[in-house]
Amino acid sequence: MALTGVLRPGHVAIRVLEMAPALKHYTEVLGLTEVARDPKGRVFLKAWDEHDHHSVVLREADEAGMDYMGWRVDSPATLKKLSADIEKSGLCSDLEWIPAGEHPKTGERFRFTIPTGHVMELFAEKEKLGNNCGTDGPNINPDPWPDGLHGIAPSRFDHCLLYGDDLDGTVKLFTQVLGFGITEQILAGPDKKLMIGVFLSCSNKAHDVAFIRQPVKGKFHHASFELGSWEKVLRAADILSRTKTSIDIGPTRHGITRGETVYFFDPSGNRNEVFAGGYIYYPDKPPITWYDEALGPAIFYHDRTLNEAFLSVFT
Amino acid sequence: MALTGVLRPGHVAIRVLEMAPALKHYTEVLGLTEVARDPKGRVFLKAWDEHDHHSVVLREADEAGMDYMGWRVDSPATLKKLSADIEKSGLCSDLEWIPAGEHPKTGERFRFTIPTGHVMELFAEKEKLGNNCGTDGPNINPDPWPDGLHGIAPSRFDHCLLYGDDLDGTVKLFTQVLGFGITEQILAGPDKKLMIGVFLSCSNKAHDVAFIRQPVKGKFHHASFELGSWEKVLRAADILSRTKTSIDIGPTRHGITRGETVYFFDPSGNRNEVFAGGYIYYPDKPPITWYDEALGPAIFYHDRTLNEAFLSVFT
Amino acid sequence: MALTGVLRPGHVAIRVLEMAPALKHYTEVLGLTEVARDPKGRVFLKAWDEHDHHSVVLREADEAGMDYMGWRVDSPATLKKLSADIEKSGLCSDLEWIPAGEHPKTGERFRFTIPTGHVMELFAEKEKLGNNCGTDGPNINPDPWPDGLHGIAPSRFDHCLLYGDDLDGTVKLFTQVLGFGITEQILAGPDKKLMIGVFLSCSNKAHDVAFIRQPVKGKFHHASFELGSWEKVLRAADILSRTKTSIDIGPTRHGITRGETVYFFDPSGNRNEVFAGGYIYYPDKPPITWYDEALGPAIFYHDRTLNEAFLSVFT
Amino acid sequence: MALTGVLRPGHVAIRVLEMAPALKHYTEVLGLTEVARDPKGRVFLKAWDEHDHHSVVLREADEAGMDYMGWRVDSPATLKKLSADIEKSGLCSDLEWIPAGEHPKTGERFRFTIPTGHVMELFAEKEKLGNNCGTDGPNINPDPWPDGLHGIAPSRFDHCLLYGDDLDGTVKLFTQVLGFGITEQILAGPDKKLMIGVFLSCSNKAHDVAFIRQPVKGKFHHASFELGSWEKVLRAADILSRTKTSIDIGPTRHGITRGETVYFFDPSGNRNEVFAGGYIYYPDKPPITWYDEALGPAIFYHDRTLNEAFLSVFT
Repeated sequence: MALTGVLRPGHVAIRVLEMAPALKHYTEVLGLTEVARDPKGRVFLKAWDEHDHHSVVLREADEAGMDYMGWRVDSPATLKKLSADIEKSGLCSDLEWIPAGEHPKTGERFRFTIPTGHVMELFAEKEKLGNNCGTDGPNINPDPWPDGLHGIAPSRFDHCLLYGDDLDGTVKLFTQVLGFGITEQILAGPDKKLMIGVFLSCSNKAHDVAFIRQPVKGKFHHASFELGSWEKVLRAADILSRTKTSIDIGPTRHGITRGETVYFFDPSGNRNEVFAGGYIYYPDKPPITWYDEALGPAIFYHDRTLNEAFLSVFT
Repeated sequence: MALTGVLRPGHVAIRVLEMAPALKHYTEVLGLTEVARDPKGRVFLKAWDEHDHHSVVLREADEAGMDYMGWRVDSPATLKKLSADIEKSGLCSDLEWIPAGEHPKTGERFRFTIPTGHVMELFAEKEKLGNNCGTDGPNINPDPWPDGLHGIAPSRFDHCLLYGDDLDGTVKLFTQVLGFGITEQILAGPDKKLMIGVFLSCSNKAHDVAFIRQPVKGKFHHASFELGSWEKVLRAADILSRTKTSIDIGPTRHGITRGETVYFFDPSGNRNEVFAGGYIYYPDKPPITWYDEALGPAIFYHDRTLNEAFLSVFT
Repeated sequence: MALTGVLRPGHVAIRVLEMAPALKHYTEVLGLTEVARDPKGRVFLKAWDEHDHHSVVLREADEAGMDYMGWRVDSPATLKKLSADIEKSGLCSDLEWIPAGEHPKTGERFRFTIPTGHVMELFAEKEKLGNNCGTDGPNINPDPWPDGLHGIAPSRFDHCLLYGDDLDGTVKLFTQVLGFGITEQILAGPDKKLMIGVFLSCSNKAHDVAFIRQPVKGKFHHASFELGSWEKVLRAADILSRTKTSIDIGPTRHGITRGETVYFFDPSGNRNEVFAGGYIYYPDKPPITWYDEALGPAIFYHDRTLNEAFLSVFT
Repeated sequence: MALTGVLRPGHVAIRVLEMAPALKHYTEVLGLTEVARDPKGRVFLKAWDEHDHHSVVLREADEAGMDYMGWRVDSPATLKKLSADIEKSGLCSDLEWIPAGEHPKTGERFRFTIPTGHVMELFAEKEKLGNNCGTDGPNINPDPWPDGLHGIAPSRFDHCLLYGDDLDGTVKLFTQVLGFGITEQILAGPDKKLMIGVFLSCSNKAHDVAFIRQPVKGKFHHASFELGSWEKVLRAADILSRTKTSIDIGPTRHGITRGETVYFFDPSGNRNEVFAGGYIYYPDKPPITWYDEALGPAIFYHDRTLNEAFLSVFT
């Protein structure tokens, strides 16, 4: 009881066109910490308040985008059960077990492609770092935040927003097989029956993953990282401007989730977000519904209109 | 899966010496909204971002303190199962079913006294208010916060801190029967084996309830309400001073939970807290441990010493 | 010594197309307080932390824009001296004395048109309100902010940004006759000799008035009001969206002055700003210079480009 | 006109018992930057947003406290005039010219002892650093804050609070000779005629220097440094706790000046303050008056009582 099953987004694997500028972006600007490299040249990173070994994986490739998103489940037994449930559901393709150790310090992962074309993984084991702030030393009498933070320094990888076509299949998978709740939805069409956007939570967070219906497969809109306050969002935007990092939009507020946000791009064109705020979600809370005519304030509450890039720029 | 079992603190019933000044405090200063009164003279209140009918119950009595704390569980089936588990555990006394309707708009509640002497309740049903901000109107295209907030205006009732003697029994009940995790603990004694304080979560919150070991039964340290930011904590303290409300301590930060806080007293001497911040807890995260010699910064991170009232003033 | 001569922007007189919606905007949304009306139908307003009788004057007219901006000087003697200096300078036209009482509770005003075509006034006397927060009661043991604030509730009218052609003449007037300092300037042209924007201060503020060179006479870009924090800028933007007020841009930061800002429009199309932050200016500080190729970040530090409206929309 | 005469607090010279721990405190914890040392072993420091060469001078001595406070005046002519006015006033003793270069990069200083026993200096010349953020490079297209800030990192040295006996003489000097205004005062006695505290401004700041009447000569309560926000005050308090720096009180708000503050001690026992907020003062604004029975909220608005150290601990 309490929180069981799928616990949280555990990692996101992002393709970058060139590793050196990407690393500079993710470590010096965004402020993650490199924790490992593997023989394939992948780089593993984490944010300061995460206790797991890594949460972001960078891989050099010819095309930007998301390779896969991994979800931490509560136990090997749950991993086994959910993998069976997924198979039984018939909703996913390319089911596959990735052996332990393929990610450093990580147990075996169950990989599958969801109806919107995104590759997802479940895993039950990843090495934990000892102390409160996810760095070194024991977990005793800790300070509230670690010394030596650099760059924007989000506390954790929080969620992804993804674009894909078969939203109905993906929602069915997340809600009926994986136990997520719908926190917010965007409905369109003459009778507001067509779901064009959905925000899903496996926790008390306003979203752990979100999907927008678009006539594409497996596309990546952004990976988001959590900041503690609106003032830190301003500081993030200042750092982005100082470092000539391309800002998409913000600082502003989302209507959906109420989050305070800035969107920006890594050097390969993958969109990142840092945000603060939101609300505490509970599974008995009915979804908040946005109608398509309110799509503007739903996404960007202050501008009340989508910027050009929101629907057209993704990787 | 996801969040199941005990979902959240659902209500706290507080005894006040005189209803009129208490109501003035809880509505005009703290900024809750009165939603109902019952024939016994009890007054039911809620915070603006709660969707359940009420979260605070005030009752006039000769002595201040907490009557009981109620917990929302996910379903009638869970209510039945947990009530049986509690009975089977042999840890609690005075087991009792309170009939539906004894609280307005609320289903039957299972009541029991825990080893530290506090009365707790489980319930599965309480009427929901329709819209996003817990007021009126449909849950569609909502604004991020409602118009017409007054006073300090916390978003929700968040947790209680309670004093009692049999901490071991209470921890056993919450962790082994009710599915809570220990987020932080204070250990004392020559070999740091004696738990003198414990913070427990049934969610992603840093605490849903906390206990301090004291040679008393069923005592109430404070009920806490959530604010969205450190600036709102300052605004709260300003309102408390303007209204001549007795402030215990703050604004300051807790070492435990990292919360940004101000403590104050209602006119009957019951302690309230409003706070912001904290971190996202997951059940696989090992507890943070504080040793008794660090009790000062654990409780009040800036002063690094307990104020006189912390251990001696409770109701 | 200390602060003498021209002390501060004392009032701005704004033309609105219809008084009722304008008043609703300036009182309920922006959150000023109406203090007087006169027989001509003008409405006089003030912000909560101003001690003078009024700072905003609304007049119904066929065309939006600014009638004039008034400056408080330190004494009648200074008023007399500066009026003579202005006359002697030969830089201004339409010199005129407005008799005492033409504005309620206000002494005589010396009116003149500056080279960029804007009407300015100097005055030495305006009735003061008694207490610390500019409302009622004595100025003794005050609270830091008054109860009963409504809307965005800026503390004071802060500055105007104006468009006009003869920037050189206006700068000469403000710096050589009126004693202002240049805090920041925008330089263009092949050798960066052409000043296309200038920010002027008669105080420790980063600007009391600013001008942009445009081939127009007497045009009004915005009137700005001070907020205490970046969080209040967010709250302002939320209120603007809730009330369907047209937002021009923001929340964002200006490079020039470092201010944290949101721009919006009153119902007649006059631009308003609320902002926080900035720095402390001293007259011995050399001006900050921006080159025209950095005009984007100079104006909007995060977007790093002017929005379409900045240069083209004014009244 | 505009701001003339005495412009601002230019430096404070503090005695420390041991230079090494003092330097560690002022550079690593408070976050000033060392800019020079002289043959006498004095160390000169500045804050990041100051344009003058230095603002804090540390000198090793057997006793902590303040050697002197220096004031920047607008010109050599003003320096000459004010030195003559001070001499003529007969209010000060130990008048003395300190030759140029005694402080590095600084012109001659006129030194005098005021009626409360404090040594003050006026000076007109100190080398300016080139760029916007007071570090290196040209003053062109600047970012809003510099990279590489460390520690608490206040923007500037702001004011001192001093204890002394002849408050009347000192107030006379500052208001009648040096051109300061009284922003706030504390009045005591049966008919509220005895001024026991006074806050003085030569600018738009709520205070540039303050005095409390105490039966001592030349005592130092604190030197204060400006932060940009209440969130930075929290961050400062966190850094103070992390570094085991002795905190006197805070975070809290002052009633007087409305400042948001934390007080702490350097390793020699000299009190420092970092603060945010306040209001814009103008010389035509009547002083705010606090009666001695409201001394608690006047000094510490939330606690509403002086802490033990406020009156008894100074250097």
